[in-house]
Amino acid sequence: MSVTDEYLENNKGYAEGFSGPLPLPPSKHIAVLACMDARLDVSRVLGIAEGEAHVIRNAGGVVSDDAIRSLAISQRLLGTTEIVLVHHTDCGMLTFTDEQFAGILRDDTGSEPEWAARSFTDLDTDVREGIAAIRTSPFVPHTDQVRGFVFDVADGTLHEVTG
Amino acid sequence: MSVTDEYLENNKGYAEGFSGPLPLPPSKHIAVLACMDARLDVSRVLGIAEGEAHVIRNAGGVVSDDAIRSLAISQRLLGTTEIVLVHHTDCGMLTFTDEQFAGILRDDTGSEPEWAARSFTDLDTDVREGIAAIRTSPFVPHTDQVRGFVFDVADGTLHEVTG
Repeated sequence: MSVTDEYLENNKGYAEGFSGPLPLPPSKHIAVLACMDARLDVSRVLGIAEGEAHVIRNAGGVVSDDAIRSLAISQRLLGTTEIVLVHHTDCGMLTFTDEQFAGILRDDTGSEPEWAARSFTDLDTDVREGIAAIRTSPFVPHTDQVRGFVFDVADGTLHEVTG
Repeated sequence: MSVTDEYLENNKGYAEGFSGPLPLPPSKHIAVLACMDARLDVSRVLGIAEGEAHVIRNAGGVVSDDAIRSLAISQRLLGTTEIVLVHHTDCGMLTFTDEQFAGILRDDTGSEPEWAARSFTDLDTDVREGIAAIRTSPFVPHTDQVRGFVFDVADGTLHEVTG
């Protein structure tokens, strides 16, 4: 049995206990942008219930153009006004450089993508740069409440990135 | 109290019950790409435990360049080989066109982004196109096991998109 089939089996139990449809717009008017890391279960870490928050995730939790696209749609069409960024300790994005990853792709495929891998060398710095990128984007209108955190995969806590 | 502060309070309880660090690579070697929708709690819907799966999410759950970037890193650096796409009923991306959203941005900011909104008119078609986009990307090496589903926000079930 594939993992996909295992997850489909899990879904049967979820659907049996399902309590019916919720409204489309997030009830708590918030969007979370977090890393895709397997150890960072955003809903459990933040105690988010179904229907409350948009959750955007990618490799690193970086403020990519696609994250800005998602945040713009979240705020302009679905009424969110608050943003939380979540990076985490022991992130894979700290373990290689964009040039190394481009080399891996070039060696294996003979071509290079138009995108960079978006690796980083310091978690807090990348969170700060992400907050700044959101604040300077004209497409994300509500930027008064943008805060960033690093999740500690060793103890489950969050520390806020300030300054 | 902001929602962010409320979520930070929730995190204290999560951290108290936290059972320690897990390995970085996803233990089930799978990546899920899903919509950011607030009603789609990917971990609960699929019964994913901490440490098992990468979870990538954006507006629509579309196969954007950023999703390909994340999948390439997931497979090439962190050993995943299986991919699941999850769209859902009542998706906001069905309610507007890319041209309409570009117009909203242009009217409000005086400029237009380089990215399109990536709206779609049919869920199954967009899932199929997403699977095809992954399969034709040279940067995602493992594409034997790529399957796509639509989550029903009314009853909690998943239906597989075939063909």
